[in-house]
Amino acid sequence: MACVVIMAGGRGERFWPRSRMAMPKQFLNLIGSKTMLQLTVERVQGLVDIEDIYVVAGAAFKDIILKQIPHLPDSNIIIEPFGRDTAAAIGLATVVVRQKHPFDVMVVLPADHYINDVPRFRDIIRGALAAASRGEEIVTLGITPHRPETGYGYIRQGDEFEVFAGVNTYQVERFLEKPDYEQALEFLSHGDYLWNSGMFIWRVDLISRLIEIHTPKLAEGLRMIEETLGTEHYQNTLREVYTDLPRISVDYGILERADNVLVIRGDFGWDDLGSWTALDRYADKDENGNVLEGKGIFLDTNDTYVYSPNNTVATIGVEDLIIVCDNDCLLVCHKDKAQEIKKAVQALKDKGFDDVL
Amino acid sequence: MACVVIMAGGRGERFWPRSRMAMPKQFLNLIGSKTMLQLTVERVQGLVDIEDIYVVAGAAFKDIILKQIPHLPDSNIIIEPFGRDTAAAIGLATVVVRQKHPFDVMVVLPADHYINDVPRFRDIIRGALAAASRGEEIVTLGITPHRPETGYGYIRQGDEFEVFAGVNTYQVERFLEKPDYEQALEFLSHGDYLWNSGMFIWRVDLISRLIEIHTPKLAEGLRMIEETLGTEHYQNTLREVYTDLPRISVDYGILERADNVLVIRGDFGWDDLGSWTALDRYADKDENGNVLEGKGIFLDTNDTYVYSPNNTVATIGVEDLIIVCDNDCLLVCHKDKAQEIKKAVQALKDKGFDDVL
Repeated sequence: MACVVIMAGGRGERFWPRSRMAMPKQFLNLIGSKTMLQLTVERVQGLVDIEDIYVVAGAAFKDIILKQIPHLPDSNIIIEPFGRDTAAAIGLATVVVRQKHPFDVMVVLPADHYINDVPRFRDIIRGALAAASRGEEIVTLGITPHRPETGYGYIRQGDEFEVFAGVNTYQVERFLEKPDYEQALEFLSHGDYLWNSGMFIWRVDLISRLIEIHTPKLAEGLRMIEETLGTEHYQNTLREVYTDLPRISVDYGILERADNVLVIRGDFGWDDLGSWTALDRYADKDENGNVLEGKGIFLDTNDTYVYSPNNTVATIGVEDLIIVCDNDCLLVCHKDKAQEIKKAVQALKDKGFDDVL
Repeated sequence: MACVVIMAGGRGERFWPRSRMAMPKQFLNLIGSKTMLQLTVERVQGLVDIEDIYVVAGAAFKDIILKQIPHLPDSNIIIEPFGRDTAAAIGLATVVVRQKHPFDVMVVLPADHYINDVPRFRDIIRGALAAASRGEEIVTLGITPHRPETGYGYIRQGDEFEVFAGVNTYQVERFLEKPDYEQALEFLSHGDYLWNSGMFIWRVDLISRLIEIHTPKLAEGLRMIEETLGTEHYQNTLREVYTDLPRISVDYGILERADNVLVIRGDFGWDDLGSWTALDRYADKDENGNVLEGKGIFLDTNDTYVYSPNNTVATIGVEDLIIVCDNDCLLVCHKDKAQEIKKAVQALKDKGFDDVL
């Protein structure tokens, strides 16, 4: 038996103005009619029961999650009082799931990734479950790079390990932080460097042990939380303890320090939809490379992406733009600057426009 | 005694999406809090009484006009059943105003021009009134060009004529159609070529006579309309006759053919606000040349004009854009393509988006 923990704590700022504080990326239907969270839940159907799916998110999103995933048990929503990076979020999830699944495999999936080939994804997860069920290794999913991406961490794939349920696993030689462009180019041409997808598969008792070993301060906090689980003191303790938890990613805090990590090459068409330009990749284009999600016309316009569900749009004499007109906001951004949208959100915040964030 | 006829029949398509079929440019407050029509009326205060101001427009705009100019007598709104260019509009106005002002001077002013130095404008009009009151010459106002504009007709200024009320008048050597860029450059450097501002001052009996001489078909139609003036047949006759009137501009139909035309150099800071880039000229800019009419932030943005009264805007990595987000529409246009907005309006029409035009 296994369980799935879906990490839904992201802020999705790069998708402003569609993604907002109150409705971040993972709860939006960026591709097709289903939301990213719904697609993530759907993707693991047949692998685990809905009772064994957990979602980690802020309290503000509980209602949205229940609305989007109606059959999800209330108690399977693991509320973080505030974000403290992935090690804390995964630690908290571990505390909760080990009540029911002390020796089961836990699959950690971000709520906001896109996967094209779902059957292949399921096959890979089955292999990962088989590998992780031994309780000796952590299993990660690495993605073969197809561009010199500087926005992800990388996994250096090592020797071949075993085959589990028809899926090859490799030892991880090392984890690498986000590279600069030169390094990213090198990684791309090398072949053994994979993108760290942020999807992890491990037995609950193993990750619990690794948290104790590599992040003792986190482990200590988690023990205090666990002691109040199911009591009236839980919420207060959680909030108090969480405040002081180290802000550290699971990659940096645990995976990089562990010596028993495997990687599976996740050849299932993965995309983290990191920015508006990612959506542009999946949209139907006109003969000039333009995308129009909404009503309007392009005049003398090339390679421009428009999302405007309500306002009728006309563009004239422009190219390589991302134009998003959503409710009370408008973004006009050069495609090369899509990563700067986070800065724009910060600038709007600095100017006091909190109502549109 | 004199009267003023304000031509408010323009469609203002170049100001889409602020300017719409139902609310064109002349009824908008493009600069400051007053509408272009209100500014035009205000500009002639002290020259004529409100009872002697007439406004030519389509029937759809009667209520808007009365709302914007509350003291204007109902009967001073001259309704065109549909547009038939300026000769017909002026002809119709002539028919109406000559009931009360058969030998008065009539000042024809477009409703959508901007004039910076109103006292100087009034002085010039006083000179023009004095010149025109003789009933022998048509008086036009020419504007000294300060850019090689290809969007206007030009007036070639000839010999000095007389001084009226302290204002110099010149004979018009000839009228010139819109030039190409090379010609416009030549006109600019020459000094005797002036922009045709579309503002005319003439005695009612003189223009009536010139219509008879130079556009007999128009004159014939106007006589049929005049015969029913004040009767129950007026509306039907107007509609029927108007359908067949020649579509011709007053410049082409009458002024170019008349030999008794004067020009006054209108040195009062004129702008026809021909497009969004014109508004950009009058707006306060940030240190990067950006204009923001609304709320928002500019990131890595230069020389961009934003009008967005409702939506909060963020621009990133763009330059030389006009961005207009108004109610249900969004325009993103390169500044060099501001003249193409008419084409965009047509393209929207072709696609059936009539509700946003």
